[in-house]
Amino acid sequence: MAAESGKSWVLAVTAQTPTNIAVIKYWGKRDEELILPINDSISVTLDPDHLCTTTSVAVSPAFTHDRMWLNGKEVSLSGGRYQNCLRELRSRASDVEDEQKGIKITKKDWEKLHVHIVSYNNFPTAAGLASSAAGLACLVFSLAKLMNVKDDHSRLSAIARQGSGSACRSLYGGFVKWIMGKEENGSDSIAVQLADEKHWDDLVIIIAVVSSRQKETSSTSGMRETVETSMLIEHRAKEVVPKRIVKMEEAIKNRDFPAFARLTCADSNQFHAVCLDTSPPIFYMNDTSHRIISCVEKWNRSEGTPQVAYTFDAGPNAVLISHNRKAAALLLQRLLFYFPPQADADLNSYVIGDKTILQDAGIQNMKDIDTLTPPPEVKDNTQTQKYRGDVSYFICTRPGRGPVVLTDESRSLINPETGLPK
Amino acid sequence: MAAESGKSWVLAVTAQTPTNIAVIKYWGKRDEELILPINDSISVTLDPDHLCTTTSVAVSPAFTHDRMWLNGKEVSLSGGRYQNCLRELRSRASDVEDEQKGIKITKKDWEKLHVHIVSYNNFPTAAGLASSAAGLACLVFSLAKLMNVKDDHSRLSAIARQGSGSACRSLYGGFVKWIMGKEENGSDSIAVQLADEKHWDDLVIIIAVVSSRQKETSSTSGMRETVETSMLIEHRAKEVVPKRIVKMEEAIKNRDFPAFARLTCADSNQFHAVCLDTSPPIFYMNDTSHRIISCVEKWNRSEGTPQVAYTFDAGPNAVLISHNRKAAALLLQRLLFYFPPQADADLNSYVIGDKTILQDAGIQNMKDIDTLTPPPEVKDNTQTQKYRGDVSYFICTRPGRGPVVLTDESRSLINPETGLPK
Repeated sequence: MAAESGKSWVLAVTAQTPTNIAVIKYWGKRDEELILPINDSISVTLDPDHLCTTTSVAVSPAFTHDRMWLNGKEVSLSGGRYQNCLRELRSRASDVEDEQKGIKITKKDWEKLHVHIVSYNNFPTAAGLASSAAGLACLVFSLAKLMNVKDDHSRLSAIARQGSGSACRSLYGGFVKWIMGKEENGSDSIAVQLADEKHWDDLVIIIAVVSSRQKETSSTSGMRETVETSMLIEHRAKEVVPKRIVKMEEAIKNRDFPAFARLTCADSNQFHAVCLDTSPPIFYMNDTSHRIISCVEKWNRSEGTPQVAYTFDAGPNAVLISHNRKAAALLLQRLLFYFPPQADADLNSYVIGDKTILQDAGIQNMKDIDTLTPPPEVKDNTQTQKYRGDVSYFICTRPGRGPVVLTDESRSLINPETGLPK
Repeated sequence: MAAESGKSWVLAVTAQTPTNIAVIKYWGKRDEELILPINDSISVTLDPDHLCTTTSVAVSPAFTHDRMWLNGKEVSLSGGRYQNCLRELRSRASDVEDEQKGIKITKKDWEKLHVHIVSYNNFPTAAGLASSAAGLACLVFSLAKLMNVKDDHSRLSAIARQGSGSACRSLYGGFVKWIMGKEENGSDSIAVQLADEKHWDDLVIIIAVVSSRQKETSSTSGMRETVETSMLIEHRAKEVVPKRIVKMEEAIKNRDFPAFARLTCADSNQFHAVCLDTSPPIFYMNDTSHRIISCVEKWNRSEGTPQVAYTFDAGPNAVLISHNRKAAALLLQRLLFYFPPQADADLNSYVIGDKTILQDAGIQNMKDIDTLTPPPEVKDNTQTQKYRGDVSYFICTRPGRGPVVLTDESRSLINPETGLPK
C-alpha cells in the first residue's frame, strides 16, 4: 500500500466546484434511490469566485473510517446518498502512485482505505443557494481525482446525481443540460455541457438573498409530495418541459436573450405553480419574491423586450439574470430603490461579489441609495413603497467555469500531517 | 302605460341576494362577450344576513334614462355587461298591473320605459368578497321581478352570468353548480341548485379579511391572461376539473366533510397555481394567506381528518369552512392567536357576523385573546410568532338562502315619490 511500509502518509487532493441555477427546473423523481428525474433540466453554472464549494479529500492507511467535515463541523457520512457516491467511486478507482512521497495505492487497496473529506462553502449554507449541489459535486470530483477515477465528467455527473440530483449539473461550467435518461439503472441520466461560460459572457447575475422567517419544505420531500399529489406535474413533465428544453437549447445557442428570459421566467413560475398544486401546498416564494418579480416584469414590459430574467429555487431568493452589464446596473438601481439596506448596514456587505456592477450603477455609499429615484416605468405613486430590510444582501456574479483541482497546497483544507481539518 | 294618464307614478321592487364562494373554481372563459366558462364550477351560497346585496329597482314614465347608484354613488350603466343584462331582461318582460296604484305596463312598454337601480352591499365592496357576484345577481333578480319576467331561476342565472360570471351562482341558496354548457349562444350555461342550505346546516364559515397593500389583477383580465399564456390551464379545465366536479357533487350529497375539504383546498390551490403559471404571473395570495393555510393544514393533519377547508378567490382573503360549530370555535381560537387585533381595536368590529362562534370559542374581550395559548399541534416554538394587524377583521357566517324579494316597503332604497335613492 505504501512503498516504505511502516511509515504512515496522507495523500490529499483539493478541488473547487461551482453551484448552478436551473433555468428549466428539475422537480420530481421517477426513482428516489437512484435520483432519476421526471424531466430534463437546464442550468447556468455560477462563477465559483462568488459561489462555490472547496473540498479537500485525503486518504491514509492511518484513517480508521470515512469522515467528513462541512463548514468546520463534523457531519455523518452514514446517509444512503453519501454511501452511494462513495461506493460508486471506490468501484471505479484506479492505481495511484506518488513517487515523490513514495506512495503506491492499487485499485484493490481503495476498497479498504478510508477517506477524510473537508468541505467549505464560500457563501452561507443556510441561504438556500444550492449548497448541496456544489457540495456533492465537489465531493465526487475531488474523490475521483484522488482515486484516479478515469471516467469523464458526464460519467462523474451520474455519480454526483446520486448524492444530490442537481449536483450533476455542477460538473460543468457554462450552460448544462441534465438529460433525464431512460435506463432503469440511471446510467444515461447524466449532465452534458451545452456551451461553456465564454459562449455567452455578457450575462450578469444578481442574486437577492431574501430574509425569510418561514421554515421551508426540503426539496427532497417537496418534490416527492408534488409527484404524489399534484394533478398538474405529469402534464408539466411530459408535455410542457420537453418543448421548453428544445427552445431553451436554441435560445442559449443563439444567445437569444428575449427567448431565454421568457422561458426562464415561465419555467420558474410553473415550478412554483406545481408546488402550490401539491397537497399540502408548498410555498417557496414570499411577498418579497413576488415584489421582485413585479418589479422585473414591469420594467421588462416598459422596455418592450426583456432586460432581466428571474428564477427562484426552493426558497424565496431571487436569481436575476441580466442581458448585460448595463441592464444589470439598471436592475441594481431598481433593487436598491425598493430594498434599501437597514440604516446600520454596511454597503460593502450588502452588495457582495462583483462590485463593479455597483460602480456602474453609480452607487458609492449609503447616501447614493437614499437618493435613488423611482424607476421611470413606475407611474403610480402607490408603487414606490420601500421594503427596507426585506432583502438580506445581494450577490453580483456571472456564469462561470466548472470544477477545477487546486494545486496550490496552501489552499488545502486538510493538514497534510494529521489528515484532519486545518 | 298608466291607467290614470297624466299622473306620474313609480313602481319599485326591492330584493336581497347573497354572495357565493366557489369550492370548485371558475377561472377562464371560452367566450368573453357571453361570459362562457371553460369548466363547470360549484359554490356555496353565503348567508345574506352577513354578506349580501340589497337592490331596489324602479320604473316610472318620468325616468328619462336608465340610472344606477351603487353604495350611495351614481355609477355608469354604459358598460356592455350591464347593457347585455338590461337588454335580455327587457326582451323577456311581461305585462304588469298594479290595480291599487292604477298602473298598467304592457310587454311592449318595457322597451321604452327606463329604470332606476339602487344597490347596497352590507359589507365593504373593496374587501374582495365577490361583491360583483351578489350585485349583478341582485340587479337581474330584482329587475326580473319588476318586469314580471317569467323565467325560472336557472334562466335568470344565464342573464346574470352575462353581467358577471359567478353572479349566476348567486341565484340559488345552498350548494350551486354552474354548468359550463355547450351551446355557442350560452343558453345552456346556467346555474342549478345541488342542495339547499338546510341540506348541510352544520357548516360554519369564517372569512378572514386580509389587509393588502398590493394592487390586485382584476379577475376579468387575470383569467384572460391565464387562458392565453398558461400551459397548465387547459389540462386543469379539461382533465382535472370534470373529475373533481363529480366528486364534489358526491361529497355534498353525502355531507362527506373530509372529501369536501380535500377537494375544496386542492381546487383553491390549483386555481392559484394556474394564476402563477400565467405570464406575467398573478399572485392573489400573500404571506398572510400562506400562514392561514399552514395553520389549517397543520391542524387538519394533527387531527387525522380535516376540520376545516380553506378557499381563496382573486385576493388574499381566506374563506374557511368548518365542519361544525365546535371546529369553528377551535378555528377561531387559532386565528385569533396568530392574528390578534391591533391594541386599539374593538373586538365587536374585529369579529363580525354570527357572534355566537366567538362565545363558543370562550372569547368575551380583548384580554381573552391575549391569553390564548398556542394550538396544541404546534410543537415548535418558531411557529408561535404572532402577526398582529395582518388580518383586518373576521366574518362568522354559514351557508345561506338564495335571493328574496323584500316586501316591507321601509326596506326599499328608492324614494317612492321621486324614484331617486332615499
